[in-house]
Amino acid sequence: MKTSSWPTVSEMASGIKTTSEEWLAVARKRLDTLTKPLGSLGMLEDITAQMVSIHRQRSNEPLHKAVYVFAADHGITSEGVSAYPSEVTHQMVLNFLAEGAAINVLAKLHKAEMKVIDVGVDADFEPNPSLLHRKVRKSSRNMLREAAMSEEELSEALNVGFELAAQAKKDNETLLAVGEMGIGNTTAASAITAALTHTSPTLVTGKGTGLNAEALAHKQRIIRAVLQTHFEAHAHNVTPDALEVLRRVGGLEIAAMTGFILGAARYEIPVIADGFISTAAAAIAFAIAPQVRGYLFAGHQSEEPGHRILLDYIGLKPILSLNMRLGEGTGAVLAMPIIESAMRLYHEMATFASAGVSEANE
Amino acid sequence: MKTSSWPTVSEMASGIKTTSEEWLAVARKRLDTLTKPLGSLGMLEDITAQMVSIHRQRSNEPLHKAVYVFAADHGITSEGVSAYPSEVTHQMVLNFLAEGAAINVLAKLHKAEMKVIDVGVDADFEPNPSLLHRKVRKSSRNMLREAAMSEEELSEALNVGFELAAQAKKDNETLLAVGEMGIGNTTAASAITAALTHTSPTLVTGKGTGLNAEALAHKQRIIRAVLQTHFEAHAHNVTPDALEVLRRVGGLEIAAMTGFILGAARYEIPVIADGFISTAAAAIAFAIAPQVRGYLFAGHQSEEPGHRILLDYIGLKPILSLNMRLGEGTGAVLAMPIIESAMRLYHEMATFASAGVSEANE
Repeated sequence: MKTSSWPTVSEMASGIKTTSEEWLAVARKRLDTLTKPLGSLGMLEDITAQMVSIHRQRSNEPLHKAVYVFAADHGITSEGVSAYPSEVTHQMVLNFLAEGAAINVLAKLHKAEMKVIDVGVDADFEPNPSLLHRKVRKSSRNMLREAAMSEEELSEALNVGFELAAQAKKDNETLLAVGEMGIGNTTAASAITAALTHTSPTLVTGKGTGLNAEALAHKQRIIRAVLQTHFEAHAHNVTPDALEVLRRVGGLEIAAMTGFILGAARYEIPVIADGFISTAAAAIAFAIAPQVRGYLFAGHQSEEPGHRILLDYIGLKPILSLNMRLGEGTGAVLAMPIIESAMRLYHEMATFASAGVSEANE
Repeated sequence: MKTSSWPTVSEMASGIKTTSEEWLAVARKRLDTLTKPLGSLGMLEDITAQMVSIHRQRSNEPLHKAVYVFAADHGITSEGVSAYPSEVTHQMVLNFLAEGAAINVLAKLHKAEMKVIDVGVDADFEPNPSLLHRKVRKSSRNMLREAAMSEEELSEALNVGFELAAQAKKDNETLLAVGEMGIGNTTAASAITAALTHTSPTLVTGKGTGLNAEALAHKQRIIRAVLQTHFEAHAHNVTPDALEVLRRVGGLEIAAMTGFILGAARYEIPVIADGFISTAAAAIAFAIAPQVRGYLFAGHQSEEPGHRILLDYIGLKPILSLNMRLGEGTGAVLAMPIIESAMRLYHEMATFASAGVSEANE
């Protein structure tokens, strides 16, 4: 335990700059000179402007892309909240290492480096250069009985993510995606969403990896009981502290993703959230430091009902909407070719002047 | 003129097979064995199943992608329906040939061969190996005064597209996108949509490349007058013949795209429609031969209000929705990495059995 060396979350947040309004304006102005009707690239123009406001330059370097997949188990699975046994977290990490999972295929196709981080899987792994061993503890605690993490564990997990973002900066990575694997983690994300946005557990809880109606009702009862245990005192629309929400009803991979997103913003690297769980981490990071929003992209709109609520809470518009609910960072990596397209158009299209194309009548 | 050698549209349509239900079932079955929650890849699973039902094989060959951009001018522009002067069609084709347009950038990034076809630009081009010279006539006729095309011109334009699809088959192209360039062509697409779907011109007409409110109202009045001229006899909910709609209120590039889509279906190649105008061509092809739908993808949902109506008419769900309204095939090519992702996942993901991952509880 070396708590003293970890930055506090306020220290992490204090270094985060607002993205550049000046560069946003530079990008908008250039977009209007390109050979296309004004505004006709729609959301691609917003993406470009945001990317330029983060990177603060007009470099046409190819993007250096990477996806970080954080894995951990959840004590709450002993309450029967998931369609899959909790061993699947371990098995799927092995599948990542064997390059057989959906995220492996997509990362390879779209040329994103893939990093797998064990922050809390309830199993021992052999040393493996493809796996980042950052286990804080084996599984979070059962949040129906106690807080999911101690203060120490929360700090350590946040720091795992923050340090990886610092390393990403050193490695000159210029577009990050964040994803996760953790059986039971839609339950944690639902509890975070309900607590953070004052929304009924019924509205924020979905069928996760595939619950039937009866099992979904059970999951909702568990989440309601979890919220009562931890936030009874906050019943009257007082938002509990976001960090305390994360500690009590979050999870180790969610905390690590929160630290990673804070770190991405701190080191001025755009970061694409994936689905419901990584967006819960983004929402915590945003609650801690609202300037984080300028660095965030929402890769896609997931099928989990709580996801839309979190996107609205942060103020993000999803790039894709493909009815996916897989996690692992898949929806975030799928958005990479769209972001890359937006940047290439910005840098490579001819202007009206250079191409000798007439502009619109007034 | 060699009308006799052109297939009639019934001849084109008669060779179109329904896509394979057997292969659709094969794909669905395999998707359920892959290491992901059942159905969790959402629309990617639908895309995969449709691709497999077209190609009728489980080959993991990389897709051979190409985008065909059909260009023509429109006589109706003399009525002042566009924000841009009609010379821009010619100028933008030159921009395509100089590789400065949005579609050039996207085709290059996503590794789609790009073909530019002049079917009716109101200008003379120097011989250029990058331009397919298939001009039927310089500009369609002013449809406010007469039919946009004669029967001869329609047949020739349809055949331009149909022959290119036959050539695409010979060249072993396995994923096609179709786009266009033609100042004034949202007016033609709006008229087609209104006639084909019995929808008010007000609902199907948008601001195109960027009209203000006054100019939009003028465009709507012109379209209403065009419809009265050509379809007065059909006022009482009798759908006019789709081919006659195309001839009277379409355009040369729209006719060529219709032939191209019929040809893609005939030669069993999946084809991605782009925005409002190429989808108008797809709607005509679908009206002529409903089996065409199985070969069609909708690349994106454009901002033009008539586009949604056409997608519903055909029964297509757009892959992307990025508020774009550019044309040129840009929205179709942007969907290519999504379709490619879907196919790679299908072929390369591990199965539950091969990866030793536990399946869901019942």
